[in-house]
Amino acid sequence: MYHHSDNIIARSTPPGRSAIAVIRMSGPGVFDLVARRAGNKKFKAPPKRQLFFSTLFDDKGQILDEVVLACFPEPNSYTGENIIEISCHGSNFIVQQIIEQFVRDGARPAGPGEFTMRAFFNGKMDLARAEGVIDLIDSENRSQHQLAIGQLRGGFSERIAGLRDRLIHFASLIELELDFGEEDVEFADKGELEKSVIEINSFISDLIDSFSMGNVIKKGISTVIAGRPNAGKSTLLNAILEEERAIVSDIEGTTRDAIEEVIHLDGVAFRLIDTAGIREAGDVVEEMGIKITLEKIAHSAILIYLFDLALSSIDEVLADLENVAKPGIKVIVVGNKLDLANESQLKAAQGKIVLPYHFLPVSSVEKKGLQELKNLLIEHFHELDSGQTDTVLHNSRHYNALLRCRESLEKVIEGLKAGVPADLVAMDIRHAMGQLNTILGRGISSDDLLQNIFSRFCIGK
Amino acid sequence: MYHHSDNIIARSTPPGRSAIAVIRMSGPGVFDLVARRAGNKKFKAPPKRQLFFSTLFDDKGQILDEVVLACFPEPNSYTGENIIEISCHGSNFIVQQIIEQFVRDGARPAGPGEFTMRAFFNGKMDLARAEGVIDLIDSENRSQHQLAIGQLRGGFSERIAGLRDRLIHFASLIELELDFGEEDVEFADKGELEKSVIEINSFISDLIDSFSMGNVIKKGISTVIAGRPNAGKSTLLNAILEEERAIVSDIEGTTRDAIEEVIHLDGVAFRLIDTAGIREAGDVVEEMGIKITLEKIAHSAILIYLFDLALSSIDEVLADLENVAKPGIKVIVVGNKLDLANESQLKAAQGKIVLPYHFLPVSSVEKKGLQELKNLLIEHFHELDSGQTDTVLHNSRHYNALLRCRESLEKVIEGLKAGVPADLVAMDIRHAMGQLNTILGRGISSDDLLQNIFSRFCIGK
Repeated sequence: MYHHSDNIIARSTPPGRSAIAVIRMSGPGVFDLVARRAGNKKFKAPPKRQLFFSTLFDDKGQILDEVVLACFPEPNSYTGENIIEISCHGSNFIVQQIIEQFVRDGARPAGPGEFTMRAFFNGKMDLARAEGVIDLIDSENRSQHQLAIGQLRGGFSERIAGLRDRLIHFASLIELELDFGEEDVEFADKGELEKSVIEINSFISDLIDSFSMGNVIKKGISTVIAGRPNAGKSTLLNAILEEERAIVSDIEGTTRDAIEEVIHLDGVAFRLIDTAGIREAGDVVEEMGIKITLEKIAHSAILIYLFDLALSSIDEVLADLENVAKPGIKVIVVGNKLDLANESQLKAAQGKIVLPYHFLPVSSVEKKGLQELKNLLIEHFHELDSGQTDTVLHNSRHYNALLRCRESLEKVIEGLKAGVPADLVAMDIRHAMGQLNTILGRGISSDDLLQNIFSRFCIGK
Repeated sequence: MYHHSDNIIARSTPPGRSAIAVIRMSGPGVFDLVARRAGNKKFKAPPKRQLFFSTLFDDKGQILDEVVLACFPEPNSYTGENIIEISCHGSNFIVQQIIEQFVRDGARPAGPGEFTMRAFFNGKMDLARAEGVIDLIDSENRSQHQLAIGQLRGGFSERIAGLRDRLIHFASLIELELDFGEEDVEFADKGELEKSVIEINSFISDLIDSFSMGNVIKKGISTVIAGRPNAGKSTLLNAILEEERAIVSDIEGTTRDAIEEVIHLDGVAFRLIDTAGIREAGDVVEEMGIKITLEKIAHSAILIYLFDLALSSIDEVLADLENVAKPGIKVIVVGNKLDLANESQLKAAQGKIVLPYHFLPVSSVEKKGLQELKNLLIEHFHELDSGQTDTVLHNSRHYNALLRCRESLEKVIEGLKAGVPADLVAMDIRHAMGQLNTILGRGISSDDLLQNIFSRFCIGK
């Protein structure tokens, strides 16, 4: 076990006025530090895993606060070290005074994620699980939450460790053969080995393929709203958002002309992107706006194409769709202003707008068809979701490591086929194993990598 | 003991992304509620005061989070009821999901201060102590903090209860006399009684007098910076604030022309009020500005009058001071621009500006004399502070109750002197006692009053 000799301290709850605030300390000496400041005679170091009411005093004997102390003795704590959590009254002033007192007594203010970094060093969790902790804290909807919980609880780590163990077994067979190389013994059936590596490689490819889905879950499904000017795009956007206003957040548009809003439907995030209207460009500036719209559509997963059911020509709509709809993008064609259209207009649209497009008549004003639109969005998410592995990759560090792992495995497969010397094959296997170990944080020597990972954490975790 | 049958739940830490968030539940059934959702077999209701690691599941069997449960069984808890505190990962989404699950299971979202209100109803603390809790959470500097800690720990309550007990004794003597009234017995020595009431009244008057000090501690000592235009007021203000920028906060000026900044010196808050320059008014608007300045000075505790040591006429300064300095306001006369003045100008100022004014040469540019100025401010706070009772009144509800109590006691004293009938005296004593009981929250029948007090609290406390 890796042991740190110093004691770290940080506020673990957000700043602000509140009922309680929690200050966390970890290290070999934290119980002694608190015992010096605690007025409660019952609190003696080292305590059991236990709760104490106590008064904390500063070094002038003044009362800092009346607090609850939660003690977690090593090794069964988050960091694997002694941990004490101080629940004090939720005043920034009090939190600051308590932390300052313990810093004067010798504790050190913790850096971002330093508690979790200690948990990692002390073998309480591997690196992928540690990364699950921060994803969990960052989670804003059910899908992100489930993804992060899975990673935190080790589902992903176990899968990676399992693949690595198979590679270890594989490598040991090859190397055994190398040791006895001169005697011309064959321990491993080359055909069996090749089959086995192909299988491992296929698992890894599935994981790599799931990354786009993982990204969608993490960042939201990009959904472009496009259409002719005055088709009612803004009204539709507002109508969709209105009922969900409480959980809508603004995202600064990356381009001048596209506005993004995130909406959570059934626990899934959709990034709704409002675009400039599509028509024959009147001038250069407008042409640029339309170009941006077309680019946005090309990079989106879903296109909501909007037209005016009462006024638009269906042939023009079909021509637009021809221009903008690319393979792989799900297109929902919304006939807006149902309230103003007559029966024959509706029937004409229903007759002409057919698969692969999904036609949906809507009235933003009368709030008709909006739930159907939301259902179509959710349905599309599940279409994207289906056929994926039960473990979904969403971390780009893991993604890059798996890409390199696959590269090496493909060399192994080629090598086995071409009958290259066993020591070369063994080297590629070692390299592939190394990449899997990087995901788990084994044998990582670069402090930069760890600093980089843990800097995403909040202070106090 | 007053018992509530329902279980309340609320987030007790501020919203936001953080290492951990704490959700608190109180009520008879909270352990059972958690036991239904906890994956930890060791967690059984009712537990001891203890900490548990556990996984919480929603009603679909999905994992909500991995949490730490802190259990506080009745009656030794904050509210006097069973309390459970759930430390989860600090994601707003997770907190919301957990609270929603327990609300579906039958818990009720708590109102502001509802936990403390239950503590009050269950006899865990009187009303004045409960008010100390909210003052503690609101405290922003050492003086406010010490005031609130004192009130929370019951110093003030004990004092009020002591005075009330003396009045009870007093009332019982009078009433005994009333019972035997026909027999013309005198149990109480009228002179002794009168002396005793005068003593109680004097204690209460001391408390009432300490209210202005309490207010100063709570709201900051109002300190007006005034002077001729171009004396360097803004430069001085910035020079004072610069070193303390981290703990400076802006307060929106109540009038158009006065800017307020709060600075904490040695744990005391000073409200620095920058004003328009004083000179012969050029027009009506300027006259109004000067009128506001003079009003600000009249309502302040400290006046920092600033002049240009190198350019101003000392006689004009003295004439200004004559105009603006009112009794009861401490005046610090700051000769600014020491760096530009010569020896004889300094000596002239030192010779002419004498007590009751405090003269201080300063150079805002060279940062000379600033610490001396701060020391003078702190010194004046201690002058204000001296001669006060050890208990300082700072709550206007208590202040008003004590004013009414004093009114009744003065009637009692007059009545005893004038020999009015004992039953009238007894009525006034009962009224005075009633006011002291109001402070402690005894016999309060008005829900409005309680709602009003607890609405100042945060949710979750």
